[in-house]
Amino acid sequence: MFAEIITIGDELLIGQVVDTNSAWMGRELNRIGIEVVRVTSVRDRKKEILDAVDSALQRAGLVLMTGGLGPTKDDITKQTLCQYFGTRLVFSEEVFRNIQHVLAGRIPMNALNRSQAYVPENAVILPNRVGSAPVTWFEKDGSVLVSLPGVPQEMTTVMTEEVIPRLREKFHTDFILHRSFMVKNYPESVLAEKLQAWEELLPDCIKLAYLPKPGWMRLRLTARGRRKPELNLLLDEEGQKLKAILGEDLYADREQAPEVLLGEILSEKGLTVATAESCTGGNMAARITSVAGSSAYFKGSIVAYANQVKEDLLGVLPETLEKYGAVSRQTVIEMVKGAMDTLKTDCALATSGIAGPAGGTPDKPVGTVWIAVACKNEIFTFLQQGDRGREMNIERACNKALIMLSDALE
Amino acid sequence: MFAEIITIGDELLIGQVVDTNSAWMGRELNRIGIEVVRVTSVRDRKKEILDAVDSALQRAGLVLMTGGLGPTKDDITKQTLCQYFGTRLVFSEEVFRNIQHVLAGRIPMNALNRSQAYVPENAVILPNRVGSAPVTWFEKDGSVLVSLPGVPQEMTTVMTEEVIPRLREKFHTDFILHRSFMVKNYPESVLAEKLQAWEELLPDCIKLAYLPKPGWMRLRLTARGRRKPELNLLLDEEGQKLKAILGEDLYADREQAPEVLLGEILSEKGLTVATAESCTGGNMAARITSVAGSSAYFKGSIVAYANQVKEDLLGVLPETLEKYGAVSRQTVIEMVKGAMDTLKTDCALATSGIAGPAGGTPDKPVGTVWIAVACKNEIFTFLQQGDRGREMNIERACNKALIMLSDALE
Repeated sequence: MFAEIITIGDELLIGQVVDTNSAWMGRELNRIGIEVVRVTSVRDRKKEILDAVDSALQRAGLVLMTGGLGPTKDDITKQTLCQYFGTRLVFSEEVFRNIQHVLAGRIPMNALNRSQAYVPENAVILPNRVGSAPVTWFEKDGSVLVSLPGVPQEMTTVMTEEVIPRLREKFHTDFILHRSFMVKNYPESVLAEKLQAWEELLPDCIKLAYLPKPGWMRLRLTARGRRKPELNLLLDEEGQKLKAILGEDLYADREQAPEVLLGEILSEKGLTVATAESCTGGNMAARITSVAGSSAYFKGSIVAYANQVKEDLLGVLPETLEKYGAVSRQTVIEMVKGAMDTLKTDCALATSGIAGPAGGTPDKPVGTVWIAVACKNEIFTFLQQGDRGREMNIERACNKALIMLSDALE
Repeated sequence: MFAEIITIGDELLIGQVVDTNSAWMGRELNRIGIEVVRVTSVRDRKKEILDAVDSALQRAGLVLMTGGLGPTKDDITKQTLCQYFGTRLVFSEEVFRNIQHVLAGRIPMNALNRSQAYVPENAVILPNRVGSAPVTWFEKDGSVLVSLPGVPQEMTTVMTEEVIPRLREKFHTDFILHRSFMVKNYPESVLAEKLQAWEELLPDCIKLAYLPKPGWMRLRLTARGRRKPELNLLLDEEGQKLKAILGEDLYADREQAPEVLLGEILSEKGLTVATAESCTGGNMAARITSVAGSSAYFKGSIVAYANQVKEDLLGVLPETLEKYGAVSRQTVIEMVKGAMDTLKTDCALATSGIAGPAGGTPDKPVGTVWIAVACKNEIFTFLQQGDRGREMNIERACNKALIMLSDALE
């Protein structure tokens, strides 16, 4: 079973908005055995939308579309689909009541919102309990096209509650199963060389992919076929072989963001954590608290951008800053100890570095980041080097620190 | 001048990676007057890549591709393009020397890296000073196809340094000019109603788009045509009319992230800032420090997830927490004062709320966030309500707080 996704909106093409919808949809469709083979983004132009819809329906049995359903003049998806499917817009009392319900207490109803209650006559209208855009399900010659709102929160709610269950019912499909493996500190080509012999002997129904992330590498095995138990068995077998080859370099044998894994380990061991951040500027705390329920183990952070804050709140000694500088092993060690003391936690992470683009010196070029992680009296440090741009320097340091603490605890 | 982008990789279709490349490329191409009319993402399969390339070249004079150039077995873009353009791979000493140079000191050279030095015989090879993947420029019947690496940092460097200058030289195109306007607290349909009469009288060469963001709305005017001064004049005129209609609801008259605007105001006024964060968990600090040079005005943050930290480091009174709760106007006021005191700054931002999904009560449901911003003795507070999911609740609160402080300072 193959699907295509079409995302609509000038803002996607001129790059003012990154299309995150299609990745989310691809992931969810994959879980129920529907494989997305193409994503197409087009502008809010009738001809271009018609073209994309027509070719997608010729190639795939299922087409999901997002965007172009807002109440304003630039949104033309609904009208365009009416033309394609040879139908017209009719006023729906039910959709209108839903719009009234959704907008109640948020904004006053006006003629533009009311226009959203006009829906294609020969389509099934699915409920949208979180927004005013109509969700329409068309069928033609055995193929299905669903038009969804482009606002991510509306799209994900409608997909989860309405579209996915209907797709499960309508289509009976191949199973697609994945296993993910997280590997520490490996350049792609070195890892590929190490895995070459094993990879060449993989069964035909299994495929390996390398997905480099800042600070680590994700490997993904994908199996596809009719019989689920057999696929699981094959994946287990190949997974075992892979683990044996990777040994200690394997960091986790499932797909999991470093902050989620760290959270699980801390919860399991009943430990608390804090961060002391200079160059990562709060990003480690933001990553840790992105996990729902993190308040059980995360107490807080001190973002110490200014040296005075490092001294006042983290107890870094003025002599240390003067002798070794803020970006030094000695300073991050004092920072990580200070975080545990001040915030009264069992563990802590600390960073101090030069994120760039300015601020580098010959001794400490942009991209130099000292990292320390600690659990009680045990402290580990690491020097990250190499400049990959401000954002990436920060992201790599966060990943590295989170992985280091997980490692230290295990 | 129209262009299409093709991004290649199974990881995009199964949703393990969000395609950020095409948005970046769309933005940069737009700046030089090349309009991206379609983005297509396909899997690492020869037939699907060939299909996408062939139809894109039939529609557009320029096709940019990213991905599938790595050293591993799943990367087949180079071979596929050879087939399409009827050429073969030949070993390039020059590309090989570049690979050696790029990898030097990072990873040992192996056969897989060496294979990256095989490049299509009848293409121009552009330098890639940050990576080992070859960048190839094909021409055929007046059209251009450029194949770029998928790693964002490599792609952006090569685009900026090599591809964009060559495109400027090769094509002479329409100008596409934008003006952006940031509007506070407006639902799309209410704003559209307010702007309707003006919008309908816009000249044909100008288009208006609504781009809702969490906590604010971006409006974009786009003008397209041959004569740049005339377009600028028209945009200025319509921009003035728009500003007159929006009045105080206009928050900025150019596209600018709230943290960038705040940074400019703080720099200009010579003020320093700190944050005290509960539910936003370091995200406000991360946003402020995402701006290069923010160390000039940002001193640090206290992320006070635990109430004890609110008391110990921010001086929130135990009585306040007991009487009003952590999520209250009284608590955020004490937090914002505490941040200015402890971190010795002129201004501060503070948040305390229930990000969700758990932790809500009938009185304070999930999504309730109290925000305070302060500059010296002036304090402003705001109560954000409504649950849009953990991530969005946090992002909205950050945007709101950053905009509130900018407003307060102006």
